[in-house]
Amino acid sequence: MNLTSKASKLVVNLAKELKELPPPESLAFGQTKTDHMLVVNYHPVHGWSAPEIKPYAPLEIDPMASCLQYATTIFEGMKAYVGPNGEARLFRPDLNMARLARSAERVALPPFDQNELLKLIKRLIQVESRWIPTLPGYSLYIRPTIIGTRDALGVAASDASCIYVIVSPTGPYFKNGGHKLGVNYAPGFLPQRHALKQGYEQILWLLGKEEKVTEILTLLITLCASSNRSEIKLITPPLDGTILPGLTRASTLALARAHSQKTITLPGLSSSLNIVVEERPLTMAEIAAYSASNALLEAFGVGTAVIVAPVSKIGWKGKDLVLPAHEGGLGPIGQAMWKMITDIQTGKIEFEGWSVVCE
Amino acid sequence: MNLTSKASKLVVNLAKELKELPPPESLAFGQTKTDHMLVVNYHPVHGWSAPEIKPYAPLEIDPMASCLQYATTIFEGMKAYVGPNGEARLFRPDLNMARLARSAERVALPPFDQNELLKLIKRLIQVESRWIPTLPGYSLYIRPTIIGTRDALGVAASDASCIYVIVSPTGPYFKNGGHKLGVNYAPGFLPQRHALKQGYEQILWLLGKEEKVTEILTLLITLCASSNRSEIKLITPPLDGTILPGLTRASTLALARAHSQKTITLPGLSSSLNIVVEERPLTMAEIAAYSASNALLEAFGVGTAVIVAPVSKIGWKGKDLVLPAHEGGLGPIGQAMWKMITDIQTGKIEFEGWSVVCE
Repeated sequence: MNLTSKASKLVVNLAKELKELPPPESLAFGQTKTDHMLVVNYHPVHGWSAPEIKPYAPLEIDPMASCLQYATTIFEGMKAYVGPNGEARLFRPDLNMARLARSAERVALPPFDQNELLKLIKRLIQVESRWIPTLPGYSLYIRPTIIGTRDALGVAASDASCIYVIVSPTGPYFKNGGHKLGVNYAPGFLPQRHALKQGYEQILWLLGKEEKVTEILTLLITLCASSNRSEIKLITPPLDGTILPGLTRASTLALARAHSQKTITLPGLSSSLNIVVEERPLTMAEIAAYSASNALLEAFGVGTAVIVAPVSKIGWKGKDLVLPAHEGGLGPIGQAMWKMITDIQTGKIEFEGWSVVCE
Repeated sequence: MNLTSKASKLVVNLAKELKELPPPESLAFGQTKTDHMLVVNYHPVHGWSAPEIKPYAPLEIDPMASCLQYATTIFEGMKAYVGPNGEARLFRPDLNMARLARSAERVALPPFDQNELLKLIKRLIQVESRWIPTLPGYSLYIRPTIIGTRDALGVAASDASCIYVIVSPTGPYFKNGGHKLGVNYAPGFLPQRHALKQGYEQILWLLGKEEKVTEILTLLITLCASSNRSEIKLITPPLDGTILPGLTRASTLALARAHSQKTITLPGLSSSLNIVVEERPLTMAEIAAYSASNALLEAFGVGTAVIVAPVSKIGWKGKDLVLPAHEGGLGPIGQAMWKMITDIQTGKIEFEGWSVVCE
């Protein structure tokens, strides 16, 4: 059986009429549908179908399909940017493909060829390149998705699947700058709705009686603490299996380490500043203690959709831990990270081949 | 906004050609598609669409739909039987509707009217009544499903949904009698595939360091232990939030209690037999100790799909706990439960209005 979806077999069926591009300022995250999508199907007997780029349209899914009945669905979040010469660029797409492959293995969906899928995604981005916004902070969000399409109700791994990739032009993830967190200390999931009602934007998930910090809904949290301004600690929970191994998380930590090793200088920071990265369990009690002693300089969440988002306050045990206010929302470290990452993403700065041109 | 899907607005579009009924002995669980399905859509502005019974066909689902991206999908398992006068019957369907409503609330899907949905399901069963097999152990499996259809990528509750109900004629769930369990003591999910490779049919999920028994994949486990044959203990884990509040589980326990209170006599059992129901945590170590002292009389799983399934051995820590062999697989308690429940389901015995005629 051929497990490779050969990109060379790609069929491109272009839409007869193209949609009008919406004004960038009207874009909300993940609400705009473009002209085309990529679809490849896997059948347990026939193997992979010829990949197809075709007009964006509803998928036809059997009512018994594994994805609808047993939630066999996985996805990645990626972004495309326009580079200095008008070229479309992806940010560390190999990491997305590797994580998608691990996700497929985890839910027992058929394996796929990472390189071939990346080639197909690059081709889709070329076809949809007019949809990449060029305003700073804007990009074309890419959502590779794999759904289980086995059409029988018996509880079993899905031996059939559909890989599809859709894209959506997007602006800054959060409309207002400050990022307010409601801490969830109820057992299990407390709906985000509840946090919103209380005036918070996101839930910060805590683990165990120790209330160890894990994730902000779509984000990871990172904290700076210091008693000495020539050295700043950048603290984030470790990848112990409870939090997403985030690509922006990994990139943020790599850039902090590169700055401290003087390989690069992060914009706006002194080259002599030592940023000590600590990947370790972090409790709410510890954050509250840092806050009380004024050692808490800034906090921010990171993620593909937001890149870097400031945290202005954290609601915990009925009180708010208020973080120092910074112009524009982000503190110096968060600001430096945001600038550096977006400069790499848009090809303004080259760093370790992270930005990949869609050729 | 009208949250009720009025059954009176039902539109019935019958298939032009009906499928040929497969021979009952060829039926495997959840693989046969019938002629019709029921579909009702909820839109956040327009409310409920007119419910429709229409030919079985793929659903058209937006690639951005919440169910495909964020797994907002819930379902119930029910069965229809043919009664003594050829009438279609459901088994305690009000409990399924109530649990479906709780599931919808849990994943923040729009609420629905339980009575109206039940009326629609009864109508679908009437339309598909020729598909209800009449052989003992056979029935028409019913799968009410609700999927989130909000078509935007932002992580939020789905304010749009599709309720659909499909049915599938089915025979006994397991082809071979004995039910062999592989005990999962790895942290997290060990795929069922792995258990199958080792010669087990199902995984028995354990909780915590104490290895507390929870569920067999689709089933609940129930154990009989006794030092005195005039009294038998029926032990099953409590509903502490980690296991499914099963309808067949509840019915089994209710019948055991009714027998001990002499309200009914379970078939094949002495009316003086006292069945002591214990809903309490149960560890693997305890089961092994019962087994070693020959106090373990029988074990069986219960569930809508299987009704009652015998357990012949439990693999744990590299060894097999072998249960006493009984003719036909089930021991006296399991056999009594299976007979009583199926007799109620098919309308041969009336018990507390559990069997409901589709009128």
